[in-house]
Amino acid sequence: MASPEIDALTQALSRLPGLGPRSARRAVLHLLRKRETALDPLLRALAAVNERLVTCATCGNVDTSDPCGVCADPRRDARALCVVEDVADLWALDRSRLFPGRFHVLGGRLSALEGVRPEDLSIDLLVARVAAGGIDEVVLAMNATLEGQTTAHYLADRLEGYPVRLTQLAHGVPVGGELDYLDEGTLAQALRARRPLG
Amino acid sequence: MASPEIDALTQALSRLPGLGPRSARRAVLHLLRKRETALDPLLRALAAVNERLVTCATCGNVDTSDPCGVCADPRRDARALCVVEDVADLWALDRSRLFPGRFHVLGGRLSALEGVRPEDLSIDLLVARVAAGGIDEVVLAMNATLEGQTTAHYLADRLEGYPVRLTQLAHGVPVGGELDYLDEGTLAQALRARRPLG
Ligand SMILES: [Zn+2]
Ligand SMILES: [Zn+2]
Repeated sequence: MASPEIDALTQALSRLPGLGPRSARRAVLHLLRKRETALDPLLRALAAVNERLVTCATCGNVDTSDPCGVCADPRRDARALCVVEDVADLWALDRSRLFPGRFHVLGGRLSALEGVRPEDLSIDLLVARVAAGGIDEVVLAMNATLEGQTTAHYLADRLEGYPVRLTQLAHGVPVGGELDYLDEGTLAQALRARRPLG
Repeated sequence: MASPEIDALTQALSRLPGLGPRSARRAVLHLLRKRETALDPLLRALAAVNERLVTCATCGNVDTSDPCGVCADPRRDARALCVVEDVADLWALDRSRLFPGRFHVLGGRLSALEGVRPEDLSIDLLVARVAAGGIDEVVLAMNATLEGQTTAHYLADRLEGYPVRLTQLAHGVPVGGELDYLDEGTLAQALRARRPLG
């Protein structure tokens, strides 16, 4: 009975992670009833993000500026680089404020099953960043999955010969676990106890 | 570390019912990564709703047209009118497709505690609709709370003398329960067994 516009909004919201059809309906009702305090701010925020959204050409982060806020931050230690599979992992690690360096987003992990090859990931760009010099340590912060670890070993091969220390997150990360789902305490422990890639 | 635009979007989303800060962050990440399939559709849907959003001058529903889709639907029985506290209640009852008539949204319920008086609700408009004639039955579908029932009795007084049958939802509605939270089965039972206001 709702209008096509309201139905479309309900559907768009229900596709967000964590929102089913029922909670999407409640969210829409909230937006319709609180036009000034809910709908307007959300619309303006979405439009602003949409207008400025870019992928950082340096690290692969998505942000509203290029270089992104992380790459542009002069307080960050340019000598330490943390390589992650996904933007979600960058955000999770960055939120923990435990890693003082910069990041590199691969855009996935190698997967024979899903046909993801090295050239599908941002690996050449990573090697170029390392080859450019000024980096002492590269933390290979892949997920503790088989594919994540395969990717880490592939990267270790590709980065061999460069004068950088390769480390990986300590095995505080549960086996099979995805970084993005971990609490900050676990992330902190894993990061503090990071060790050379064996 | 996220940009002000992304922070604003996260905050706007985290204020929606059912979305906390954590799920809002996940939703934002999803939107940033799925620009074409998630961000664009949501932005377009929100803008379309925002552009057309109106309160129905007849019944108080919020919709993208005035009269709203319910009031404009010629298949609906104009002789039966269901009075609800809130737009959320209208939607819940309408979704159940069990009530074939039209609706009237009061915009709240009488409350000494919160200082809500009859003139703060859409009661004069309700009386005017009934006075205009053509209505046989008015279902007073207030919440089964003390304030809801007080409101129902006040409405019954105001509608006395008009040739309409006043009914209320059967006591399938749990005491203290809010209509909007009920499953359709309970709503169906309560509506089917509705009885004259005693
Ligand atoms: Zn960057
Ligand atoms: Zn209407």
